[in-house]
Amino acid sequence: MIQTKLIPRTAEAHEPPMLIKSMLAQSLKYEPQREIVYRDLFRMNYIQFNQRVRKLANVLTELGIKPGDMVAVFDWDSHRYLECFFGVTSYGAILHTINVRLSPAQILYTMNHAKDKIVLIHEDFLPILAAIKDQLTTVEKFVVLSDKVYTGTAEVKPLNELPEGVEGEYEALLNSASDQYEFPDFDENTWATSFYTTGTTGNPKGVYFSHRQLFMHTMGLLTYIIGYEAMPFKGSTDVYMPITPMFHVHAWGFPFLATMMSAKQVYPGRYEPELLLKLLIAEGVTLSHCVPTILNMLVSSPAAPRFRENLSRWKVIIGGSALTKGLANAATGLGITVISGYGMSETAPILAVGYLNEQEKMCLPEEQIDLRTRAGRIAPFVELRLMDDNGQFVAHDGHSLGEIVARGPWLTQGYYEDPERGADLWKGGWLHTGDVASITTDHWVIVSDRTKDVIKTGGEWVSSLDMEDVLSQVEGIAESAVVGLPDERWGERPHALIIQKPGYALTAEGVKAELQAKVDRGDLHKWYVPDRIVFVQEIPKTSVGKIDKKKIRSEMKELILGK
Amino acid sequence: MIQTKLIPRTAEAHEPPMLIKSMLAQSLKYEPQREIVYRDLFRMNYIQFNQRVRKLANVLTELGIKPGDMVAVFDWDSHRYLECFFGVTSYGAILHTINVRLSPAQILYTMNHAKDKIVLIHEDFLPILAAIKDQLTTVEKFVVLSDKVYTGTAEVKPLNELPEGVEGEYEALLNSASDQYEFPDFDENTWATSFYTTGTTGNPKGVYFSHRQLFMHTMGLLTYIIGYEAMPFKGSTDVYMPITPMFHVHAWGFPFLATMMSAKQVYPGRYEPELLLKLLIAEGVTLSHCVPTILNMLVSSPAAPRFRENLSRWKVIIGGSALTKGLANAATGLGITVISGYGMSETAPILAVGYLNEQEKMCLPEEQIDLRTRAGRIAPFVELRLMDDNGQFVAHDGHSLGEIVARGPWLTQGYYEDPERGADLWKGGWLHTGDVASITTDHWVIVSDRTKDVIKTGGEWVSSLDMEDVLSQVEGIAESAVVGLPDERWGERPHALIIQKPGYALTAEGVKAELQAKVDRGDLHKWYVPDRIVFVQEIPKTSVGKIDKKKIRSEMKELILGK
Repeated sequence: MIQTKLIPRTAEAHEPPMLIKSMLAQSLKYEPQREIVYRDLFRMNYIQFNQRVRKLANVLTELGIKPGDMVAVFDWDSHRYLECFFGVTSYGAILHTINVRLSPAQILYTMNHAKDKIVLIHEDFLPILAAIKDQLTTVEKFVVLSDKVYTGTAEVKPLNELPEGVEGEYEALLNSASDQYEFPDFDENTWATSFYTTGTTGNPKGVYFSHRQLFMHTMGLLTYIIGYEAMPFKGSTDVYMPITPMFHVHAWGFPFLATMMSAKQVYPGRYEPELLLKLLIAEGVTLSHCVPTILNMLVSSPAAPRFRENLSRWKVIIGGSALTKGLANAATGLGITVISGYGMSETAPILAVGYLNEQEKMCLPEEQIDLRTRAGRIAPFVELRLMDDNGQFVAHDGHSLGEIVARGPWLTQGYYEDPERGADLWKGGWLHTGDVASITTDHWVIVSDRTKDVIKTGGEWVSSLDMEDVLSQVEGIAESAVVGLPDERWGERPHALIIQKPGYALTAEGVKAELQAKVDRGDLHKWYVPDRIVFVQEIPKTSVGKIDKKKIRSEMKELILGK
Repeated sequence: MIQTKLIPRTAEAHEPPMLIKSMLAQSLKYEPQREIVYRDLFRMNYIQFNQRVRKLANVLTELGIKPGDMVAVFDWDSHRYLECFFGVTSYGAILHTINVRLSPAQILYTMNHAKDKIVLIHEDFLPILAAIKDQLTTVEKFVVLSDKVYTGTAEVKPLNELPEGVEGEYEALLNSASDQYEFPDFDENTWATSFYTTGTTGNPKGVYFSHRQLFMHTMGLLTYIIGYEAMPFKGSTDVYMPITPMFHVHAWGFPFLATMMSAKQVYPGRYEPELLLKLLIAEGVTLSHCVPTILNMLVSSPAAPRFRENLSRWKVIIGGSALTKGLANAATGLGITVISGYGMSETAPILAVGYLNEQEKMCLPEEQIDLRTRAGRIAPFVELRLMDDNGQFVAHDGHSLGEIVARGPWLTQGYYEDPERGADLWKGGWLHTGDVASITTDHWVIVSDRTKDVIKTGGEWVSSLDMEDVLSQVEGIAESAVVGLPDERWGERPHALIIQKPGYALTAEGVKAELQAKVDRGDLHKWYVPDRIVFVQEIPKTSVGKIDKKKIRSEMKELILGK
C-alpha cells in the first residue's frame, strides 16, 4: 500500500462502523408494513420483526451469552433464523449456522471445534442432538424452536420433558422479553458468522465472516442484482423466498439484502416440493435461488404448467453446480427467468453472476441460453484472475485455462484454527478456489474443471470435463470419465474410462480415430486425445453421485496403465 | 465501542480497502458501450473513459504530482471533471473542486488555504486566474481545459500565448500519454476531495471526504435511489445529467453512482437553458438534480409543454432550497417526477430524500405533493436526531422542533485547518446542521428554520418561517419577516416586520386580533403571536435575495423595540 494523506479528524467527530445493525435499521425506515412469512404458520411485518430481533438480544443477555460467544443455530429456513442473522450478530455474538445435512459425527466435530456455547435447535433435530449431546464439550444451554406454537394443534413439550439443559422454547422466551434494546457500536471487523465446509479429505473446515464483509457482500448484491437488474430484481418490490438453506453461506447472503430493502420475504421451512410451489403461488414469490436439482424438481412437477402465469414472474439464480442448457431451456419454457451464479463457502459466496448487457440481450435465444449457463460475470468489487502452476496470471482471452483466484471485500480470511489449510487457501495473497476456468475479455467466467481433476500435459491444461463432453458426442458412448495419470515425458496425460451403450461394440482405436478426425478439422487440440481408452461396466461415483476421480486415479491406475 | 472478537487473518489473506477505483473498475465490466456525452461537443464510451482516466494519471505523474498533493479543478460540468473525480483521487492525490461562483478574493483564499499544487482551469476562467495569479502561494503549474479542441473551429492558443506556468492543454496532454496505469491500493481513509463552503461570517471553510466516505455515499444513493426506486432510478438504464455544479458537493455524488453503474451520462458544461433543454430531449435524459430556480426556469420555458412526452420520463431531485408546492405542481403538471432531497456541503451531501411508500402512494395527489415538498426521509445508514439547546434529544413526533444533528458514514470530520469551527460542528459527537426541524414517527424530516433564526421563547422553539407563513395568509400582507429579540421574561419573543399590499391600511392591533382568533380556534400556539408588529416599506435582503434576519436583528432592533 502506498503512503497517502489521510483525512484529519476532529476529536469529537464520529464515523460509524459498517455493521449488520445498519442494514437492520434500514429495514424499518420506509416500508415497515411489508411482511415476513413462515410457511403457512406465521407472518409479521418489519416493525414486529425488529421488535423480535431486540427481544432475542434480551433473551441472549438473560441466558448469559456475551459478545464473542458462539451461538449455534440448527433450523430449517425460518423467520427465527432470520432473527438470528440480525439479532445474534448485532449483539456482538457469533452465529454458527449448522449444516443439518452433515453426519452426526461431523456435526459434533464442528460444534466442539467452533466452541458453541448455546444451541438454538428445531425440535425436528432433537434426535440428532440426543445422539451427540454427551460428547459436546463446550455447549452449556439449549433453546428449542417449535413450529407447534404457531398451529396451536399440539402442545410444546413441557420443559421437564425436554432434554437436560434446555432453557425453554424460543417463542415463549421471546414473549417474556422486553422489545427495547440498543445494539452497540463495535469494530466492523468483528466476527459475525461461521460455518463449516467439507471437502473430500480431512475434517470440516470452518470459514468465518465479519460484519464489514457481510455488509459489503450485501452492497455487491445490491449493485448487481438491483442496480444492474441482473435478474432483474425490482428493488424492494420483489418477493423473496430462499430455496438454498440458510445454513449454506447465509442463503447466499440474500436475506441480508431483502431485509435491508424491507422486501416481502417468505421462509419455507423444510423444503417440501408441494409447499414450495404453494408458497410461490400464494405469496407471489418473484425471486429465489437454488441448486439445479430443486429447480429441476419444480419445473418437472406436473402442476407447473398450470402456474405459468405465476412462474413467469419468478426469477431464479442457480448455483451450487452448473446450470445445464436443458434445465435452462425447460425453465425458460415455463416463463421463468434463470441465470447462473458462481461462488463457494469461502467467498460468502458471490464471485460471479450472469448479466446480459444491451448487446447480448439482442442475441438469439440459444446464444442467450449459452450465456445464462456460464458461471457468471465477475461480480462488483471482486477481482478474479486465472493462475497457472507457477503462480503466473493467465490471459483473459476466453480459452486459456487457469485456476480461478480471487480478491474481494467478503472472502474468508482463513480457516478457523487450521493455519495450514488457511495458508494454502491464501497462497501468494490470492484466494485459491480450486476451480479451473477461462475468462472472456468481457468478464464472463467459464468454469471447466476442478484443479485436482484438470490434466496438466506438456504445459497445457486439459479440462477433464470438456473432454468428457467431447466423448459424450461420440455415438455409442453412454458415459465417460477422463483423468490425468503421470507421464514421464509430458508430466501427465489424459486417460478415459468409457461405458458404452447397449448394442454397440466400440474399440479404443475407433474412438481415437473419431477424436483424431476432430483434431484434423481443428475442433480439438491434439493433446486432448486420451492416451488410453478403457471400456468398463461402471464408473466409480462419490456419495453425492459425482464421478470419483480421486478413486479412479488411485485405485484404477493399475487397470488403466496396466492394460 | 464494546469489545468483541475480531476475525482472525491468515498472514497472506487479502481484504481490499474501499476506494474510488473499485467504482471505476465496475464501470468497465458490464455495459462498456454506454456513452458519456459533453454538450454537443464530445462523446465517448466507458472503455475510452477508462483509458482517459488512466492517461490523466500518467499526465499527473509526468507533471510531478504526488499522492497527497492538492489538484484544483476550475471547470463547468464536463467529462473532464468526471475524469478528475476518478483519476485524481485514484492516483492518491486530492481533488479540490473550486466554486467558480465565489469572488476572486475568496477563490484566492481557498486555493492558498488548500495549498493547491496544480490547477486545471477552463479557458473561460483565465481572466479570474490572471487577476489572482500573483498572489497564489503554492500553485506551481496550470493545465488549460479548452472546448475549442472539440469543435476544430478555432485553435487553442499556443503555449507561449498562455499565462506563465501553463504546462499545456488537457486534451493535448492526454493525447500524448499512455493509457496503461495500475491504480495502487492505499488506506481507505485517504483524503479524496475537498471544497469550500461559505457562511455569513468569516472565511470559507474547507470540508473534506475520504475514499471510504465517497464509496459509502454511493452505496447510500444506490440503496435509496435505485434499491427503493425512490425516484425511481431505473438502475443502469437511466440517462443522467447533473444540473447542480460538480464543484458543489460532487454534484451531490451522483456522478460516482452513474459511473459505477455505467449509465449513460450527459454533462452540460456551462448551464444555458436552451442547451439544457436540447440535451434533455436529444440525449433522452431521465434523471437530474437541481435547485428550484433551475427547475422553475425549465418548467416556465414556453417550449416546455411541447416536450411533455420527453419531460414525462424525467425525474428530478430538488435540493439547495425548499421545493415549493407551486413548483412541484407545475413540474408534475408537465409529467415530471419531482422529489426533495436534503443535505449540506458538510454531509457529502445526502441526509434525506423523499420516498413515498406503498401506503403513501395511495394518498390523494395534493397529499402526495405535501410529502414530496418535505425535506425528505432519513437516508440509509444515516442517523438524524433533533437536539435542544441543552444537548437533549427531542421526540420524533412530527411537531416538536429541534436542531437536526447527524451521524453517518459520509460526514466531513472537521473543517480543514480550522479546529475551532470543526469542534463546534461536531460538538457532543453529532454533526450540527444548524437546521431546525421536526421528524415524524415514520422518518420524514420537515425542516422549518435555521437555528440562528428560530425564536426560543419560554422553552419553546418558534419557527420564524412558519410564522411568516401564517402572516402570509392574512389579507393585505404582502411580505413579512419574523425575528426573535431578547426578552427578560421569556428569553426571546417574536417580532414581525410587515409590508402591506397597496390599498390596505392594516394596523398592528388588527393583525394581532386575527392571529388571536387563530389561537382561539386552536390553529396557532399563543406564544407564536409576535409581541410587536412594525409596518415597513422594505425588508432587508441578502445578496442572494433571502431575508437578512441577522441585519434585522442587529440594525432594526432599535426600530422594532423603540417604537
